[in-house]
Amino acid sequence: MVRDQADKNDYDFRLTLKVRDYELDVQGIVNNANYLHYLEHTRHAFCDAAGLSFAAMHASGIDPVLRRVDIEYLNPLRSGDMMESCLAIRREGAKFVFRQDIYRSPGGDPVVKARVEVVCLENGRLTRGDALAEAFSEYVND
Amino acid sequence: MVRDQADKNDYDFRLTLKVRDYELDVQGIVNNANYLHYLEHTRHAFCDAAGLSFAAMHASGIDPVLRRVDIEYLNPLRSGDMMESCLAIRREGAKFVFRQDIYRSPGGDPVVKARVEVVCLENGRLTRGDALAEAFSEYVND
Amino acid sequence: MVRDQADKNDYDFRLTLKVRDYELDVQGIVNNANYLHYLEHTRHAFCDAAGLSFAAMHASGIDPVLRRVDIEYLNPLRSGDMMESCLAIRREGAKFVFRQDIYRSPGGDPVVKARVEVVCLENGRLTRGDALAEAFSEYVND
Amino acid sequence: MVRDQADKNDYDFRLTLKVRDYELDVQGIVNNANYLHYLEHTRHAFCDAAGLSFAAMHASGIDPVLRRVDIEYLNPLRSGDMMESCLAIRREGAKFVFRQDIYRSPGGDPVVKARVEVVCLENGRLTRGDALAEAFSEYVND
Repeated sequence: MVRDQADKNDYDFRLTLKVRDYELDVQGIVNNANYLHYLEHTRHAFCDAAGLSFAAMHASGIDPVLRRVDIEYLNPLRSGDMMESCLAIRREGAKFVFRQDIYRSPGGDPVVKARVEVVCLENGRLTRGDALAEAFSEYVND
Repeated sequence: MVRDQADKNDYDFRLTLKVRDYELDVQGIVNNANYLHYLEHTRHAFCDAAGLSFAAMHASGIDPVLRRVDIEYLNPLRSGDMMESCLAIRREGAKFVFRQDIYRSPGGDPVVKARVEVVCLENGRLTRGDALAEAFSEYVND
Repeated sequence: MVRDQADKNDYDFRLTLKVRDYELDVQGIVNNANYLHYLEHTRHAFCDAAGLSFAAMHASGIDPVLRRVDIEYLNPLRSGDMMESCLAIRREGAKFVFRQDIYRSPGGDPVVKARVEVVCLENGRLTRGDALAEAFSEYVND
Repeated sequence: MVRDQADKNDYDFRLTLKVRDYELDVQGIVNNANYLHYLEHTRHAFCDAAGLSFAAMHASGIDPVLRRVDIEYLNPLRSGDMMESCLAIRREGAKFVFRQDIYRSPGGDPVVKARVEVVCLENGRLTRGDALAEAFSEYVND
Protein backbone atom coordinates (compact mmCIF):
# COMPACT_ATOMS: atom_id res chain seq x y z
CA MET A 1 0.00 0.00 0.00
CA VAL A 2 1.17 3.52 -0.78
CA ARG A 3 0.22 4.61 2.76
CA ASP A 4 -1.71 3.68 5.86
CA GLN A 5 -5.44 3.37 5.74
CA ALA A 6 -7.05 6.82 5.90
CA ASP A 7 -10.46 7.91 7.01
CA LYS A 8 -12.50 8.72 3.92
CA ASN A 9 -13.83 11.81 5.66
CA ASP A 10 -10.36 13.11 6.35
CA TYR A 11 -9.76 15.35 3.31
CA ASP A 12 -9.22 19.09 2.93
CA PHE A 13 -10.86 19.40 -0.50
CA ARG A 14 -13.13 17.44 -2.83
CA LEU A 15 -13.94 17.92 -6.51
CA THR A 16 -16.49 16.05 -8.63
CA LEU A 17 -15.42 15.29 -12.20
CA LYS A 18 -16.82 13.28 -15.09
CA VAL A 19 -14.86 11.10 -17.48
CA ARG A 20 -14.63 12.54 -21.00
CA ASP A 21 -14.60 9.99 -23.82
CA TYR A 22 -11.37 11.34 -25.34
CA GLU A 23 -9.61 10.30 -22.11
CA LEU A 24 -10.29 6.61 -22.81
CA ASP A 25 -7.84 4.35 -24.55
CA VAL A 26 -8.35 1.34 -26.78
CA GLN A 27 -9.05 -0.90 -23.76
CA GLY A 28 -12.11 1.29 -23.02
CA ILE A 29 -10.64 2.61 -19.77
CA VAL A 30 -9.19 5.99 -18.86
CA ASN A 31 -5.54 6.12 -19.97
CA ASN A 32 -3.10 6.04 -17.04
CA ALA A 33 -1.62 9.48 -17.77
CA ASN A 34 -5.02 11.19 -17.57
CA TYR A 35 -5.25 10.41 -13.84
CA LEU A 36 -2.26 12.75 -13.39
CA HIS A 37 -4.32 15.39 -15.19
CA TYR A 38 -7.21 14.80 -12.77
CA LEU A 39 -4.83 15.06 -9.81
CA GLU A 40 -3.23 18.28 -11.11
CA HIS A 41 -6.61 19.84 -11.87
CA THR A 42 -7.74 18.99 -8.32
CA ARG A 43 -4.64 20.60 -6.77
CA HIS A 44 -5.13 23.75 -8.86
CA ALA A 45 -8.85 23.92 -7.93
CA PHE A 46 -7.80 23.56 -4.28
CA CYS A 47 -5.31 26.42 -4.71
CA ASP A 48 -8.03 28.54 -6.33
CA ALA A 49 -10.33 27.80 -3.40
CA ALA A 50 -7.51 28.87 -1.05
CA GLY A 51 -7.21 32.12 -3.01
CA LEU A 52 -4.03 31.21 -4.94
CA SER A 53 -4.31 30.81 -8.71
CA PHE A 54 -1.37 29.18 -10.50
CA ALA A 55 -1.37 31.99 -13.06
CA ALA A 56 -1.08 34.60 -10.29
CA MET A 57 1.64 32.61 -8.49
CA HIS A 58 3.63 32.22 -11.74
CA ALA A 59 3.26 35.97 -12.46
CA SER A 60 4.68 36.78 -9.01
CA GLY A 61 7.68 34.47 -9.51
CA ILE A 62 6.43 31.55 -7.40
CA ASP A 63 6.36 28.17 -9.14
CA PRO A 64 5.25 25.04 -7.31
CA VAL A 65 6.87 22.08 -9.07
CA LEU A 66 6.27 18.37 -8.82
CA ARG A 67 9.03 16.28 -7.23
CA ARG A 68 7.44 12.85 -7.03
CA VAL A 69 4.17 11.04 -7.70
CA ASP A 70 3.46 7.58 -6.31
CA ILE A 71 0.15 6.37 -7.72
CA GLU A 72 -1.69 3.05 -7.32
CA TYR A 73 -4.27 2.10 -9.95
CA LEU A 74 -7.07 0.18 -8.22
CA ASN A 75 -10.22 0.23 -10.36
CA PRO A 76 -10.37 1.79 -13.82
CA LEU A 77 -12.88 4.47 -14.82
CA ARG A 78 -14.92 3.99 -17.99
CA SER A 79 -17.15 6.03 -20.32
CA GLY A 80 -19.79 8.01 -18.44
CA ASP A 81 -18.28 7.45 -14.98
CA MET A 82 -18.35 10.17 -12.36
CA MET A 83 -15.58 10.50 -9.77
CA GLU A 84 -14.91 12.33 -6.52
CA SER A 85 -11.32 13.56 -6.39
CA CYS A 86 -10.17 14.12 -2.78
CA LEU A 87 -7.10 15.88 -1.42
CA ALA A 88 -5.36 16.34 1.93
CA ILE A 89 -2.23 18.46 2.33
CA ARG A 90 0.57 18.49 4.89
CA ARG A 91 4.05 19.99 5.10
CA GLU A 92 7.29 18.00 5.51
CA GLY A 93 10.23 20.37 5.68
CA ALA A 94 10.50 22.15 2.33
CA LYS A 95 7.99 19.77 0.72
CA PHE A 96 4.22 19.92 0.49
CA VAL A 97 2.80 16.40 0.49
CA PHE A 98 -0.62 15.88 -1.06
CA ARG A 99 -2.56 12.71 -0.36
CA GLN A 100 -4.86 12.44 -3.37
CA ASP A 101 -7.47 9.72 -3.73
CA ILE A 102 -10.12 9.32 -6.42
CA TYR A 103 -13.33 7.34 -5.83
CA ARG A 104 -16.02 6.30 -8.29
CA SER A 105 -19.22 8.20 -7.62
CA PRO A 106 -21.73 7.04 -6.60
CA GLY A 107 -20.58 3.87 -4.88
CA GLY A 108 -17.22 4.96 -3.61
CA ASP A 109 -15.00 2.26 -5.16
CA PRO A 110 -11.41 3.45 -4.91
CA VAL A 111 -9.99 4.31 -8.35
CA VAL A 112 -6.49 5.59 -7.63
CA LYS A 113 -4.57 6.43 -4.46
CA ALA A 114 -1.65 8.78 -4.82
CA ARG A 115 1.01 10.59 -2.82
CA VAL A 116 2.29 13.73 -4.52
CA GLU A 117 5.30 15.78 -3.43
CA VAL A 118 5.60 19.43 -4.45
CA VAL A 119 8.36 21.92 -3.78
CA CYS A 120 8.29 25.64 -4.29
CA LEU A 121 10.63 27.65 -6.51
CA GLU A 122 10.89 31.42 -6.24
CA ASN A 123 12.51 33.01 -9.29
CA GLY A 124 13.88 29.59 -10.16
CA ARG A 125 15.47 28.83 -6.75
CA LEU A 126 14.27 26.24 -4.24
CA THR A 127 12.71 27.79 -1.13
CA ARG A 128 11.27 26.54 2.15
CA GLY A 129 7.85 27.36 0.69
CA ASP A 130 6.87 29.83 3.40
CA ALA A 131 4.81 31.98 1.02
CA LEU A 132 2.80 28.94 -0.02
CA ALA A 133 2.51 27.66 3.54
CA GLU A 134 1.03 30.96 4.67
CA ALA A 135 -1.65 30.78 1.97
CA PHE A 136 -2.38 27.19 3.02
CA SER A 137 -2.16 27.94 6.76
CA GLU A 138 -5.78 26.94 7.29
CA TYR A 139 -4.93 23.45 6.03
CA VAL A 140 -1.24 22.86 6.72
CA ASN A 141 0.28 21.98 10.08
CA ASP A 142 4.06 22.22 10.15
CA MET B 1 15.34 7.75 -3.80
CA VAL B 2 12.95 5.50 -5.67
CA ARG B 3 15.62 2.79 -5.84
CA ASP B 4 19.31 2.06 -5.46
CA GLN B 5 21.81 3.56 -7.84
CA ALA B 6 21.81 1.65 -11.10
CA ASP B 7 24.44 1.29 -13.75
CA LYS B 8 23.46 3.48 -16.68
CA ASN B 9 24.44 0.68 -19.03
CA ASP B 10 22.17 -1.80 -17.32
CA TYR B 11 19.00 -1.49 -19.42
CA ASP B 12 17.14 -3.91 -21.68
CA PHE B 13 15.83 -1.30 -24.10
CA ARG B 14 16.43 2.33 -25.12
CA LEU B 15 14.37 4.72 -27.21
CA THR B 16 15.26 8.22 -28.40
CA LEU B 17 12.41 10.75 -28.38
CA LYS B 18 12.08 14.48 -28.96
CA VAL B 19 9.89 16.88 -27.00
CA ARG B 20 6.91 18.17 -28.98
CA ASP B 21 5.86 21.75 -28.21
CA TYR B 22 2.24 20.77 -27.45
CA GLU B 23 3.58 18.73 -24.51
CA LEU B 24 4.78 21.91 -22.75
CA ASP B 25 2.73 23.75 -20.20
CA VAL B 26 2.59 27.43 -19.31
CA GLN B 27 5.82 27.15 -17.27
CA GLY B 28 7.61 26.21 -20.52
CA ILE B 29 8.38 22.68 -19.31
CA VAL B 30 6.90 19.31 -20.28
CA ASN B 31 3.67 18.76 -18.30
CA ASN B 32 4.04 16.05 -15.64
CA ALA B 33 1.42 13.73 -17.19
CA ASN B 34 3.26 13.58 -20.51
CA TYR B 35 6.16 11.70 -18.90
CA LEU B 36 3.70 8.85 -18.30
CA HIS B 37 2.97 8.97 -22.02
CA TYR B 38 6.71 8.73 -22.76
CA LEU B 39 7.02 5.78 -20.35
CA GLU B 40 4.02 3.97 -21.85
CA HIS B 41 5.24 4.54 -25.40
CA THR B 42 8.65 3.14 -24.40
CA ARG B 43 7.07 -0.01 -22.88
CA HIS B 44 4.98 -0.56 -25.99
CA ALA B 45 8.00 -0.06 -28.26
CA PHE B 46 9.87 -2.59 -26.11
CA CYS B 47 6.99 -5.05 -26.49
CA ASP B 48 7.02 -4.48 -30.26
CA ALA B 49 10.76 -5.17 -30.31
CA ALA B 50 10.10 -8.39 -28.36
CA GLY B 51 7.51 -9.38 -30.97
CA LEU B 52 4.42 -8.53 -28.89
CA SER B 53 2.22 -5.67 -30.10
CA PHE B 54 -0.40 -4.35 -27.66
CA ALA B 55 -3.04 -4.57 -30.38
CA ALA B 56 -2.23 -8.26 -30.98
CA MET B 57 -2.18 -9.03 -27.24
CA HIS B 58 -5.54 -7.28 -26.74
CA ALA B 59 -7.01 -9.18 -29.72
CA SER B 60 -5.92 -12.50 -28.15
CA GLY B 61 -7.49 -11.62 -24.79
CA ILE B 62 -4.28 -10.63 -22.97
CA ASP B 63 -4.29 -7.17 -21.37
CA PRO B 64 -1.30 -5.91 -19.42
CA VAL B 65 -2.59 -3.30 -16.96
CA LEU B 66 -0.81 -0.77 -14.81
CA ARG B 67 -0.89 -1.34 -11.04
CA ARG B 68 1.44 1.35 -9.77
CA VAL B 69 3.77 4.09 -10.96
CA ASP B 70 6.33 5.73 -8.66
CA ILE B 71 8.01 8.57 -10.55
CA GLU B 72 10.58 11.13 -9.43
CA TYR B 73 10.87 14.36 -11.42
CA LEU B 74 14.52 15.43 -11.44
CA ASN B 75 15.17 17.87 -14.29
CA PRO B 76 12.44 19.18 -16.60
CA LEU B 77 12.56 18.89 -20.38
CA ARG B 78 11.96 22.00 -22.51
CA SER B 79 11.19 22.91 -26.11
CA GLY B 80 13.55 21.22 -28.57
CA ASP B 81 15.07 18.81 -26.02
CA MET B 82 15.95 15.24 -26.99
CA MET B 83 15.73 12.40 -24.48
CA GLU B 84 16.86 8.79 -24.14
CA SER B 85 14.15 6.69 -22.52
CA CYS B 86 15.61 3.53 -20.92
CA LEU B 87 13.89 0.42 -19.59
CA ALA B 88 14.80 -2.68 -17.59
CA ILE B 89 12.29 -5.42 -16.79
CA ARG B 90 12.14 -8.05 -14.07
CA ARG B 91 9.46 -10.36 -12.67
CA GLU B 92 8.23 -10.38 -9.06
CA GLY B 93 5.57 -13.04 -8.59
CA ALA B 94 2.59 -12.09 -10.73
CA LYS B 95 3.98 -8.61 -11.38
CA PHE B 96 6.29 -7.31 -14.05
CA VAL B 97 8.38 -4.49 -12.68
CA PHE B 98 9.80 -1.97 -15.13
CA ARG B 99 12.59 0.34 -14.08
CA GLN B 100 12.23 3.28 -16.46
CA ASP B 101 14.62 6.22 -16.52
CA ILE B 102 14.74 9.14 -18.92
CA TYR B 103 17.91 11.14 -19.56
CA ARG B 104 18.41 14.37 -21.47
CA SER B 105 20.35 13.72 -24.65
CA PRO B 106 23.08 14.65 -25.21
CA GLY B 107 24.55 15.24 -21.79
CA GLY B 108 22.79 12.55 -19.82
CA ASP B 109 21.18 14.66 -17.08
CA PRO B 110 18.55 12.51 -15.37
CA VAL B 111 15.01 13.75 -16.17
CA VAL B 112 12.74 11.24 -14.44
CA LYS B 113 13.31 7.94 -12.64
CA ALA B 114 10.33 5.63 -12.39
CA ARG B 115 9.30 2.21 -11.13
CA VAL B 116 6.27 0.81 -12.95
CA GLU B 117 4.31 -2.30 -11.92
CA VAL B 118 2.22 -4.16 -14.48
CA VAL B 119 0.00 -7.20 -14.07
CA CYS B 120 -1.50 -9.33 -16.77
CA LEU B 121 -5.19 -9.99 -17.28
CA GLU B 122 -6.42 -12.81 -19.51
CA ASN B 123 -10.05 -12.37 -20.51
CA GLY B 124 -10.45 -9.98 -17.62
CA ARG B 125 -8.97 -12.25 -14.90
CA LEU B 126 -5.65 -11.76 -13.15
CA THR B 127 -3.02 -14.32 -14.18
CA ARG B 128 0.55 -15.19 -13.20
CA GLY B 129 1.55 -13.65 -16.54
CA ASP B 130 3.22 -16.76 -17.92
CA ALA B 131 2.30 -15.94 -21.52
CA LEU B 132 3.94 -12.53 -21.20
CA ALA B 133 6.92 -13.94 -19.33
CA GLU B 134 7.58 -16.40 -22.13
CA ALA B 135 7.62 -13.60 -24.70
CA PHE B 136 10.00 -11.66 -22.47
CA SER B 137 12.10 -14.72 -21.55
CA GLU B 138 15.18 -13.20 -23.11
CA TYR B 139 14.93 -10.30 -20.65
CA VAL B 140 13.14 -11.59 -17.55
CA ASN B 141 14.67 -13.66 -14.79
CA ASP B 142 12.15 -15.13 -12.39
CA MET C 1 -16.64 33.41 -42.16
CA VAL C 2 -17.29 29.74 -41.75
CA ARG C 3 -21.06 30.34 -42.04
CA ASP C 4 -23.80 32.94 -42.01
CA GLN C 5 -24.47 34.92 -38.88
CA ALA C 6 -26.56 32.86 -36.48
CA ASP C 7 -28.82 33.88 -33.66
CA LYS C 8 -27.03 33.18 -30.39
CA ASN C 9 -30.24 31.76 -28.99
CA ASP C 10 -30.56 29.30 -31.84
CA TYR C 11 -28.84 26.21 -30.41
CA ASP C 12 -30.08 22.72 -29.54
CA PHE C 13 -27.70 22.15 -26.63
CA ARG C 14 -25.38 24.10 -24.32
CA LEU C 15 -22.67 22.92 -21.95
CA THR C 16 -20.64 24.97 -19.47
CA LEU C 17 -16.98 24.01 -19.12
CA LYS C 18 -13.95 25.43 -17.36
CA VAL C 19 -10.41 25.59 -18.70
CA ARG C 20 -8.01 23.19 -16.98
CA ASP C 21 -4.44 24.43 -16.63
CA TYR C 22 -2.94 21.34 -18.33
CA GLU C 23 -4.79 22.43 -21.50
CA LEU C 24 -2.67 25.60 -21.79
CA ASP C 25 0.47 25.81 -23.86
CA VAL C 26 3.61 27.85 -23.41
CA GLN C 27 1.88 30.98 -24.78
CA GLY C 28 -0.51 30.77 -21.79
CA ILE C 29 -3.53 30.02 -24.01
CA VAL C 30 -5.50 26.82 -24.57
CA ASN C 31 -3.69 24.71 -27.17
CA ASN C 32 -5.53 24.56 -30.50
CA ALA C 33 -6.12 20.79 -30.39
CA ASN C 34 -7.93 20.99 -27.05
CA TYR C 35 -10.81 22.90 -28.65
CA LEU C 36 -11.51 19.73 -30.65
CA HIS C 37 -11.68 17.92 -27.33
CA TYR C 38 -14.21 20.48 -26.04
CA LEU C 39 -16.26 20.09 -29.24
CA GLU C 40 -16.21 16.28 -29.06
CA HIS C 41 -17.12 16.27 -25.37
CA THR C 42 -20.04 18.61 -26.15
CA ARG C 43 -21.32 16.34 -28.94
CA HIS C 44 -21.09 13.29 -26.66
CA ALA C 45 -22.89 15.14 -23.84
CA PHE C 46 -25.59 16.10 -26.36
CA CYS C 47 -25.90 12.44 -27.42
CA ASP C 48 -26.17 11.41 -23.75
CA ALA C 49 -28.92 14.01 -23.24
CA ALA C 50 -30.70 12.56 -26.28
CA GLY C 51 -30.45 9.08 -24.72
CA LEU C 52 -27.58 7.81 -26.89
CA SER C 53 -24.25 7.09 -25.21
CA PHE C 54 -21.24 6.56 -27.47
CA ALA C 55 -20.34 3.41 -25.54
CA ALA C 56 -23.83 1.97 -26.13
CA MET C 57 -23.77 2.94 -29.82
CA HIS C 58 -20.32 1.36 -30.28
CA ALA C 59 -21.51 -1.82 -28.50
CA SER C 60 -24.47 -2.09 -30.91
CA GLY C 61 -22.22 -1.69 -33.97
CA ILE C 62 -23.01 1.98 -34.70
CA ASP C 63 -20.00 4.29 -34.95
CA PRO C 64 -20.41 7.97 -35.74
CA VAL C 65 -17.16 9.14 -37.34
CA LEU C 66 -15.81 12.59 -38.08
CA ARG C 67 -15.53 13.56 -41.75
CA ARG C 68 -14.54 17.20 -41.55
CA VAL C 69 -13.96 19.99 -39.04
CA ASP C 70 -13.74 23.64 -40.10
CA ILE C 71 -12.83 25.73 -37.06
CA GLU C 72 -12.11 29.45 -36.71
CA TYR C 73 -10.08 30.60 -33.69
CA LEU C 74 -11.39 34.01 -32.62
CA ASN C 75 -10.37 34.75 -29.01
CA PRO C 76 -8.16 32.44 -26.96
CA LEU C 77 -9.17 31.04 -23.57
CA ARG C 78 -6.74 31.38 -20.66
CA SER C 79 -6.25 29.98 -17.14
CA GLY C 80 -9.41 30.11 -15.05
CA ASP C 81 -11.74 30.98 -17.95
CA MET C 82 -15.24 29.54 -18.15
CA MET C 83 -16.90 28.83 -21.49
CA GLU C 84 -20.34 28.03 -22.87
CA SER C 85 -20.13 25.39 -25.60
CA CYS C 86 -23.17 25.53 -27.90
CA LEU C 87 -24.36 23.08 -30.54
CA ALA C 88 -26.98 22.95 -33.29
CA ILE C 89 -27.54 19.88 -35.46
CA ARG C 90 -29.00 19.38 -38.92
CA ARG C 91 -29.00 16.59 -41.49
CA GLU C 92 -27.63 16.89 -45.03
CA GLY C 93 -28.09 13.63 -46.91
CA ALA C 94 -25.98 10.98 -45.16
CA LYS C 95 -24.18 13.61 -43.09
CA PHE C 96 -25.00 15.15 -39.75
CA VAL C 97 -23.75 18.72 -39.64
CA PHE C 98 -23.04 20.22 -36.24
CA ARG C 99 -22.67 23.96 -35.86
CA GLN C 100 -20.57 24.31 -32.72
CA ASP C 101 -19.67 27.66 -31.19
CA ILE C 102 -17.86 28.37 -27.93
CA TYR C 103 -18.26 31.66 -26.06
CA ARG C 104 -16.34 32.99 -23.06
CA SER C 105 -18.60 33.07 -20.02
CA PRO C 106 -19.58 35.47 -18.68
CA GLY C 107 -19.32 38.15 -21.32
CA GLY C 108 -20.05 36.13 -24.42
CA ASP C 109 -16.95 36.87 -26.48
CA PRO C 110 -16.78 34.31 -29.28
CA VAL C 111 -13.88 31.87 -28.78
CA VAL C 112 -14.21 29.43 -31.69
CA LYS C 113 -16.81 28.85 -34.38
CA ALA C 114 -16.86 25.44 -36.00
CA ARG C 115 -18.71 23.34 -38.53
CA VAL C 116 -18.38 19.61 -37.92
CA GLU C 117 -19.49 16.86 -40.32
CA VAL C 118 -20.20 13.38 -39.00
CA VAL C 119 -21.22 10.24 -40.86
CA CYS C 120 -22.50 7.03 -39.42
CA LEU C 121 -20.93 3.59 -39.86
CA GLU C 122 -22.82 0.42 -39.03
CA ASN C 123 -20.53 -2.57 -38.64
CA GLY C 124 -17.88 -0.63 -40.52
CA ARG C 125 -20.05 0.33 -43.53
CA LEU C 126 -21.30 3.82 -44.37
CA THR C 127 -25.05 4.21 -43.84
CA ARG C 128 -27.66 6.93 -44.37
CA GLY C 129 -27.64 7.35 -40.59
CA ASP C 130 -31.33 6.57 -40.09
CA ALA C 131 -30.78 5.00 -36.66
CA LEU C 132 -29.01 8.13 -35.47
CA ALA C 133 -31.54 10.43 -37.13
CA GLU C 134 -34.37 8.72 -35.28
CA ALA C 135 -32.66 9.26 -31.94
CA PHE C 136 -32.12 12.90 -32.87
CA SER C 137 -35.60 13.35 -34.38
CA GLU C 138 -36.49 16.00 -31.84
CA TYR C 139 -33.61 18.13 -33.12
CA VAL C 140 -33.00 17.15 -36.75
CA ASN C 141 -35.08 18.27 -39.73
CA ASP C 142 -34.30 16.34 -42.88
CA MET D 1 -12.95 18.77 -51.20
CA VAL D 2 -10.99 21.19 -49.08
CA ARG D 3 -8.95 22.21 -52.12
CA ASP D 4 -7.97 21.28 -55.65
CA GLN D 5 -6.04 18.13 -56.31
CA ALA D 6 -2.37 18.71 -55.58
CA ASP D 7 0.70 16.97 -56.84
CA LYS D 8 1.98 14.68 -54.09
CA ASN D 9 5.51 15.84 -54.84
CA ASP D 10 4.62 19.47 -54.38
CA TYR D 11 5.47 20.02 -50.71
CA ASP D 12 8.04 22.18 -48.93
CA PHE D 13 8.59 19.85 -45.98
CA ARG D 14 7.95 16.23 -44.95
CA LEU D 15 8.13 14.54 -41.56
CA THR D 16 7.77 10.85 -40.74
CA LEU D 17 5.88 10.05 -37.53
CA LYS D 18 4.60 6.91 -35.86
CA VAL D 19 1.29 6.51 -34.05
CA ARG D 20 1.65 6.18 -30.28
CA ASP D 21 -0.90 3.93 -28.58
CA TYR D 22 -2.02 6.62 -26.11
CA GLU D 23 -3.26 8.62 -29.13
CA LEU D 24 -5.92 5.98 -29.91
CA ASP D 25 -9.47 6.17 -28.64
CA VAL D 26 -11.93 3.45 -27.75
CA GLN D 27 -12.73 2.84 -31.45
CA GLY D 28 -9.07 1.80 -31.92
CA ILE D 29 -8.30 4.77 -34.17
CA VAL D 30 -6.31 7.94 -33.55
CA ASN D 31 -8.55 10.50 -31.80
CA ASN D 32 -9.51 13.41 -34.07
CA ALA D 33 -7.79 16.06 -31.91
CA ASN D 34 -4.43 14.31 -32.13
CA TYR D 35 -4.21 15.05 -35.86
CA LEU D 36 -4.05 18.74 -34.90
CA HIS D 37 -1.10 17.80 -32.70
CA TYR D 38 0.58 16.08 -35.64
CA LEU D 39 -0.05 19.14 -37.84
CA GLU D 40 1.30 21.56 -35.21
CA HIS D 41 4.37 19.41 -34.59
CA THR D 42 5.02 19.34 -38.36
CA ARG D 43 4.76 23.15 -38.64
CA HIS D 44 7.14 23.60 -35.72
CA ALA D 45 9.61 21.09 -37.20
CA PHE D 46 9.39 23.01 -40.48
CA CYS D 47 10.13 26.28 -38.61
CA ASP D 48 13.09 24.61 -36.89
CA ALA D 49 14.40 23.45 -40.28
CA ALA D 50 14.02 27.05 -41.54
CA GLY D 51 16.06 28.23 -38.55
CA LEU D 52 13.13 29.59 -36.49
CA SER D 53 12.28 27.84 -33.23
CA PHE D 54 8.96 28.70 -31.61
CA ALA D 55 10.72 29.23 -28.28
CA ALA D 56 13.11 31.75 -29.88
CA MET D 57 10.28 33.52 -31.70
CA HIS D 58 8.23 33.76 -28.48
CA ALA D 59 11.27 35.09 -26.59
CA SER D 60 11.72 37.84 -29.21
CA GLY D 61 8.05 38.86 -28.99
CA ILE D 62 6.85 37.15 -32.19
CA ASP D 63 3.90 34.78 -31.78
CA PRO D 64 2.39 32.97 -34.75
CA VAL D 65 -1.22 32.16 -33.88
CA LEU D 66 -3.77 29.90 -35.52
CA ARG D 67 -6.73 31.59 -37.19
CA ARG D 68 -8.47 28.69 -38.88
CA VAL D 69 -8.12 24.97 -39.52
CA ASP D 70 -10.17 23.15 -42.14
CA ILE D 71 -9.45 19.42 -41.91
CA GLU D 72 -10.92 16.45 -43.77
CA TYR D 73 -10.64 13.01 -42.17
CA LEU D 74 -10.20 10.44 -44.95
CA ASN D 75 -8.70 7.23 -43.54
CA PRO D 76 -8.01 6.66 -39.85
CA LEU D 77 -4.62 5.69 -38.47
CA ARG D 78 -4.37 2.72 -36.09
CA SER D 79 -1.90 1.16 -33.66
CA GLY D 80 1.55 0.74 -35.17
CA ASP D 81 0.87 2.86 -38.27
CA MET D 82 3.53 5.11 -39.74
CA MET D 83 2.65 8.37 -41.47
CA GLU D 84 4.28 10.95 -43.71
CA SER D 85 3.18 14.46 -42.73
CA CYS D 86 3.61 16.91 -45.62
CA LEU D 87 3.46 20.71 -45.68
CA ALA D 88 3.40 23.50 -48.25
CA ILE D 89 3.35 27.17 -47.31
CA ARG D 90 2.19 30.29 -49.12
CA ARG D 91 1.42 33.87 -48.13
CA GLU D 92 -1.97 35.57 -48.59
CA GLY D 93 -1.82 39.17 -47.36
CA ALA D 94 -1.19 39.05 -43.62
CA LYS D 95 -1.88 35.31 -43.46
CA PHE D 96 0.39 32.35 -43.91
CA VAL D 97 -1.56 29.46 -45.40
CA PHE D 98 -0.27 25.95 -44.79
CA ARG D 99 -1.51 23.08 -46.92
CA GLN D 100 -0.92 20.05 -44.68
CA ASP D 101 -1.61 16.50 -45.79
CA ILE D 102 -0.87 13.27 -43.96
CA TYR D 103 -0.43 9.95 -45.79
CA ARG D 104 -0.14 6.43 -44.39
CA SER D 105 3.35 5.10 -44.94
CA PRO D 106 4.08 2.90 -46.75
CA GLY D 107 1.23 2.80 -49.23
CA GLY D 108 0.36 6.46 -49.40
CA ASP D 109 -3.34 6.31 -48.51
CA PRO D 110 -4.48 9.82 -47.65
CA VAL D 111 -5.26 10.16 -43.92
CA VAL D 112 -6.16 13.83 -43.49
CA LYS D 113 -6.05 16.88 -45.75
CA ALA D 114 -5.96 20.25 -44.03
CA ARG D 115 -5.72 23.96 -44.75
CA VAL D 116 -4.29 25.94 -41.84
CA GLU D 117 -4.24 29.74 -41.56
CA VAL D 118 -1.72 31.44 -39.28
CA VAL D 119 -1.23 35.12 -38.51
CA CYS D 120 1.66 36.73 -36.76
CA LEU D 121 1.48 38.81 -33.59
CA GLU D 122 4.37 41.03 -32.48
CA ASN D 123 4.13 42.01 -28.83
CA GLY D 124 0.44 41.10 -28.96
CA ARG D 125 -0.45 43.17 -32.06
CA LEU D 126 -1.36 41.80 -35.47
CA THR D 127 1.37 42.41 -38.07
CA ARG D 128 1.81 41.79 -41.80
CA GLY D 129 4.21 39.01 -40.78
CA ASP D 130 7.24 40.42 -42.61
CA ALA D 131 9.70 39.02 -40.04
CA LEU D 132 8.27 35.55 -40.52
CA ALA D 133 8.07 35.95 -44.30
CA GLU D 134 11.75 36.81 -44.46
CA ALA D 135 12.67 33.67 -42.56
CA PHE D 136 10.48 31.65 -44.91
CA SER D 137 11.64 33.53 -48.04
CA GLU D 138 13.04 30.36 -49.54
CA TYR D 139 9.55 28.83 -49.46
CA VAL D 140 7.04 31.69 -49.60
CA ASN D 141 6.06 33.60 -52.72
CA ASP D 142 4.03 36.73 -52.00
